[in-house]
Amino acid sequence: MKKTRLEAFSDGVFAIVITLLVLELKPEGGGSGWQMFLHIWPKLVVYALSFVLVGLYWVAHHNMLHFVEKTDRGFLWLNLLLLMVVAFIPYPTALLGATHADESSIWIYGVTLALTNIVGTGLWYYAARKRRLVSAGLSEEFVRFVYKLHLGPVLIYGVAMAMAPLWRPGSLVLIALVPLFYILPNPFLEKRIAPIAALQRGEG
Amino acid sequence: MKKTRLEAFSDGVFAIVITLLVLELKPEGGGSGWQMFLHIWPKLVVYALSFVLVGLYWVAHHNMLHFVEKTDRGFLWLNLLLLMVVAFIPYPTALLGATHADESSIWIYGVTLALTNIVGTGLWYYAARKRRLVSAGLSEEFVRFVYKLHLGPVLIYGVAMAMAPLWRPGSLVLIALVPLFYILPNPFLEKRIAPIAALQRGEG
Amino acid sequence: MKKTRLEAFSDGVFAIVITLLVLELKPEGGGSGWQMFLHIWPKLVVYALSFVLVGLYWVAHHNMLHFVEKTDRGFLWLNLLLLMVVAFIPYPTALLGATHADESSIWIYGVTLALTNIVGTGLWYYAARKRRLVSAGLSEEFVRFVYKLHLGPVLIYGVAMAMAPLWRPGSLVLIALVPLFYILPNPFLEKRIAPIAALQRGEG
Amino acid sequence: MKKTRLEAFSDGVFAIVITLLVLELKPEGGGSGWQMFLHIWPKLVVYALSFVLVGLYWVAHHNMLHFVEKTDRGFLWLNLLLLMVVAFIPYPTALLGATHADESSIWIYGVTLALTNIVGTGLWYYAARKRRLVSAGLSEEFVRFVYKLHLGPVLIYGVAMAMAPLWRPGSLVLIALVPLFYILPNPFLEKRIAPIAALQRGEG
Repeated sequence: MKKTRLEAFSDGVFAIVITLLVLELKPEGGGSGWQMFLHIWPKLVVYALSFVLVGLYWVAHHNMLHFVEKTDRGFLWLNLLLLMVVAFIPYPTALLGATHADESSIWIYGVTLALTNIVGTGLWYYAARKRRLVSAGLSEEFVRFVYKLHLGPVLIYGVAMAMAPLWRPGSLVLIALVPLFYILPNPFLEKRIAPIAALQRGEG
Repeated sequence: MKKTRLEAFSDGVFAIVITLLVLELKPEGGGSGWQMFLHIWPKLVVYALSFVLVGLYWVAHHNMLHFVEKTDRGFLWLNLLLLMVVAFIPYPTALLGATHADESSIWIYGVTLALTNIVGTGLWYYAARKRRLVSAGLSEEFVRFVYKLHLGPVLIYGVAMAMAPLWRPGSLVLIALVPLFYILPNPFLEKRIAPIAALQRGEG
Repeated sequence: MKKTRLEAFSDGVFAIVITLLVLELKPEGGGSGWQMFLHIWPKLVVYALSFVLVGLYWVAHHNMLHFVEKTDRGFLWLNLLLLMVVAFIPYPTALLGATHADESSIWIYGVTLALTNIVGTGLWYYAARKRRLVSAGLSEEFVRFVYKLHLGPVLIYGVAMAMAPLWRPGSLVLIALVPLFYILPNPFLEKRIAPIAALQRGEG
Repeated sequence: MKKTRLEAFSDGVFAIVITLLVLELKPEGGGSGWQMFLHIWPKLVVYALSFVLVGLYWVAHHNMLHFVEKTDRGFLWLNLLLLMVVAFIPYPTALLGATHADESSIWIYGVTLALTNIVGTGLWYYAARKRRLVSAGLSEEFVRFVYKLHLGPVLIYGVAMAMAPLWRPGSLVLIALVPLFYILPNPFLEKRIAPIAALQRGEG
């Protein structure tokens, strides 16, 4: 399968997942519109959180694929596994909303997010190991940097899950820091992702 | 990220949002098909209103992106923020339908629409300020005209929201005037959007 | 707006509508899987009918757009109006299913389908009149033939709606004949749509 | 219709179907997030199964279309029939989940999957017979191999359905073997799909 085809299909799934999240938000609880709005405020918070996280996964997927030059059967199916985990995100999002983010919902949400990052790392491992599907000229340093970018959040998700029994809002804030780290200007990141940034400016 | 990729993803989200709106319409209220149809007439009205508004936002987004020549990380994330607000529109639409457009639902709807325009204006500010991502040759006059196009409706939405406690149907009619202003032939607009019109004729 | 962009957006909406139809089918009625399946058989019939009709509208839209060479603001908004009616189809489909196709549901369904054809005809009128957006070389005969193709079904839908109080299954069969007319080999059609057929073979 | 257009529309439908599957997963059963998660474990299993199967059908469709050089009206409508069966898959998936995979739900699921393969085979027959829409140079051996690839699973689905009254989990495992056969490294397959594998590496 041509890379562009696989990218277009993946982009389609990301776009659908990110848009389907709103279907969890329904008029419920009765009363005026404002009362119904307040009634579902936990769902509104997790809607925004999941939207930004799926957006981040889309950007990360796009950036990774930029360095992949060709695809094969294994890559195709690992990519479908990644899409399966991403397409699953609306369910733990709904759990979080339905239980006002109880402990175990945070765990299920955290495990889903961690799985997304782990499968993403596996995809990069598959493509970059022995430069199977990426440019032979890619530096070992850059390959390792991508691993760190994808595995770093798993640590954060782990801490957030460990913190859930103690302080649940803190868990969600910690999870929300992951996309913020990538979204906000960030000297640590800037220095290392010059090539990615160049791509994002449309120069790549 | 290449501009075309960002545009395709955004178009996907707009297409999904505009089509998902119908999911709020379900057979309810019992009786014959005609009775069920009458039972949800407020939902039918807001379906049409939201459909046209999302369509307008899609066209506006497309027109703005035409003048953007490259993208960067900040633009990418501001664009995702815009998509988040647009993808949220089905929820206040459902609130309007469920409460037969009560006062507070009109406020929530109006704030959502105003936010869409404000984030859209922010996107233009980010791209056009110091000609960061747009053509250096773009006239200051045109840049300002785009601001007016995006901020004008915020005023209308504000008046509609202020009018809600007095006459709710009037609020909705006022909101509906926004897309009509852009859809119907309009000498005020025609004179100023000659460049946009040229694009729409496929000459750009 | 470039024609290709408008086509891609429209195709997206058609693809989403045609796929969303399945969301009306849910396990209901209790008992075994087979009992639940039988319980919703009217919904299964209208699922297939609406799927084929939306498919037909997609093909018709695609064929019409082939002859349109450029677009303008009016065309863009008429096209959005067409998409609004098409995106609405899941609702009357659900009504048909929920009422086991009662008389008034058939009328609402028929009016929706007729509206789709009428707006489609309006789109062609807008584009073809005085050869505004189509090739100047298009024969008057061909332009008229497209009118007939789009208005013919309105007659059939009208007869089907008139027949509803007498024999409801007959109404549905009559509606189902519309797509069959275009799908099955058909000498009347073949002779006249040689240019369209040529396009469909990928020669255009 | 150009082949690329038909492919893009089909890819859109596949992407939407595969992502809609998650809508069957909702917080239900009450209690903590973890209890709700356990409550729907049969739905989680069939979610994964259907996701992989729709993914497989997408890949199979893509591979088949690679050898199709042009399209015609018959091909277009057979392809829409295939999409109708694929877009239907979420319903038998929901039945399986709602009945904890009772006997008759397995039958309905199995028949749907078998139908998908049979319509897919019909599509290949239509295109490849007398080399109507495929390259004249395609070997008879390869054409037959594609038949076997598409009809083989029908046998497995049949055995799985026959086994349902005896051991329902065994039926599901058997169905799950179908995608595994195509996903896992497989010497039987490798030898014969060299040309397809070459395409998947992006060489085609």
